[in-house]
Amino acid sequence: MITTRRILSTAAVLGLMLSPSTAQPSATENGREIPGYFLPVPDDLSPQMRALVAAPPAPWDIHPKNIEEWKELVARVAAPARTALPAMREKLGVAMEPTTIAGVKAFILTPRTIAPENQNRVFLHFHGGAYVLQPGEAGTREGILMAAFGRAKVISVDYRTSSDAPYPAALDDCVAVYRELLKTVPAQRIGVFGTSTGGGLTMALVLRGKQDGFALPAAIAPGSPWADLTKTGDTFYTHNLVDNFQVSYDGYLKDAAILYANGRDFKDPMLSPLYGDLRGFPPTILTSGTRDLFLSLTVKVHRKLRQSGVDAALQVFEALSHAQYTFNPDAPETREVFEEIARFFDARMQR
Amino acid sequence: MITTRRILSTAAVLGLMLSPSTAQPSATENGREIPGYFLPVPDDLSPQMRALVAAPPAPWDIHPKNIEEWKELVARVAAPARTALPAMREKLGVAMEPTTIAGVKAFILTPRTIAPENQNRVFLHFHGGAYVLQPGEAGTREGILMAAFGRAKVISVDYRTSSDAPYPAALDDCVAVYRELLKTVPAQRIGVFGTSTGGGLTMALVLRGKQDGFALPAAIAPGSPWADLTKTGDTFYTHNLVDNFQVSYDGYLKDAAILYANGRDFKDPMLSPLYGDLRGFPPTILTSGTRDLFLSLTVKVHRKLRQSGVDAALQVFEALSHAQYTFNPDAPETREVFEEIARFFDARMQR
Repeated sequence: MITTRRILSTAAVLGLMLSPSTAQPSATENGREIPGYFLPVPDDLSPQMRALVAAPPAPWDIHPKNIEEWKELVARVAAPARTALPAMREKLGVAMEPTTIAGVKAFILTPRTIAPENQNRVFLHFHGGAYVLQPGEAGTREGILMAAFGRAKVISVDYRTSSDAPYPAALDDCVAVYRELLKTVPAQRIGVFGTSTGGGLTMALVLRGKQDGFALPAAIAPGSPWADLTKTGDTFYTHNLVDNFQVSYDGYLKDAAILYANGRDFKDPMLSPLYGDLRGFPPTILTSGTRDLFLSLTVKVHRKLRQSGVDAALQVFEALSHAQYTFNPDAPETREVFEEIARFFDARMQR
Repeated sequence: MITTRRILSTAAVLGLMLSPSTAQPSATENGREIPGYFLPVPDDLSPQMRALVAAPPAPWDIHPKNIEEWKELVARVAAPARTALPAMREKLGVAMEPTTIAGVKAFILTPRTIAPENQNRVFLHFHGGAYVLQPGEAGTREGILMAAFGRAKVISVDYRTSSDAPYPAALDDCVAVYRELLKTVPAQRIGVFGTSTGGGLTMALVLRGKQDGFALPAAIAPGSPWADLTKTGDTFYTHNLVDNFQVSYDGYLKDAAILYANGRDFKDPMLSPLYGDLRGFPPTILTSGTRDLFLSLTVKVHRKLRQSGVDAALQVFEALSHAQYTFNPDAPETREVFEEIARFFDARMQR
């Protein structure tokens, strides 16, 4: 009965009766089969972004069996950064200075020119990598892009990753650096940003601030935030194997969630901020792509923020997979993302 | 050579070499095969919206061979509106008055209560339906929703549809009503909205205004706009058969584009506003869903507006297909869409 009513409810909109030949026999009230298809690369991307979009899926079906194997994976993933990132900094004119803040390792990233409006501001960066990848310099890539295109001083936090220390280590480190920063920089001159895990940590920082009563940043930019560690979100299905970077929840992503949560409930808002109370959040700009495995997470965070009365903006880029706007500094789409975030921040931060 | 470089460019980001077993052999620089999959219905929608999302694809593989067959289709599609819409108006407390403005048929839709801020404003509505469907009262559904949830007076234009008259008839009618309205209502008190074809017409109206020099509306809300009649956009592929309402470009949608264009170049900006110069556009709010066949069109319009310096906002709803937020007035998601548009309009219109 229910199924029949549901079928009619949509068919009625078009005023057409479903004939047996057009109805998909495999459709039920729980879902339906989607046939395989050929996915072309769009022609209207920049050449630089087209190259990233055209690449086959990155390796994802990786299941480290123990901490040793995780550490091997971490080392392998971090290796190319040692040559790529110095060259990128050189090209973009960004200086890097390793430091320690409140006992936590961090990198200060300074562009050749800081924009006049950003002279007294700090953009705090939490890197991505499923809470386990990209420790050390490898985690600074997005921070470098923001320093260069946002023309602001960036502090990128080298928080403890979960092959060394699971939750709450990463969040504790991010909070410690932020609170130390608050001693010299007013919250209204601090913006916080980060993609994927960095977006999740950005949101968890705000939840921690609401809980512990410290001043919230002036604005935040969680990019394609890993705001829910469970496999809840339509694009985990529609974009499975479509997203050529994150590719699938069922690879190392799920394993990394288990490693980080360390037995805790995935739905704890400090691990999955989408389940938190988002009222009172600072102005927020979210970024995603139409092929992003986390597109659903991104738009769900956006809707929940708007429902909570928060000044929240959404930008979604054609054909981009998860975090793909953080890869190539030469792609105009990359510059556009960070310039847009900087513009959003500028309109909402004190000078 | 090119393909090898591209493969490395993404693999390098993860620091992993592709092994023959993980590389998809069918991937080329032009695209790749995506395997079939089971698409579940998300659990976190409202029950009303879940019913719409769970329905199998609506009939779409329809190819009318001549005007007679188009007219038959139009009549069949419009029929349910004769019973559904009076009931909907009754339930939502919206009165409908047929009228003629500048020689064009239209409907005035008045809610029981007009919000204080909207007393002197008019929201002008252009309906959807691929330029050929939903003439007459059938086209007022979205207008009724906006009148009810936006608590404003709505004028819904019953423009000539393309089984009677192709381009530029529909646009001419919309322009004529708008310009007549300008004689009694200042542009800064007019907002224009519409979904799908209605979104395309909304954008084309602005392009016509820029060309002919009439005052532009204070704000516009093209929902999932049919801003490009060609099959250009990544979600025409990723969301083919995923979107259960519009379903596929290759059904009546393409045929309807041919009928409307009537031999003109699909890329003429008055037919496909995405190819137009969007500088100077009024503040714009765009709406889509993660399963929307037109998600790419929507985000491409948003990006181009932002690149053109326009105040533009984007809202994307979890799991919704094309225009699905215009179907069920009882779904909280429906109310949310129109309240959000009304809020955006309110912040940008004169009282």
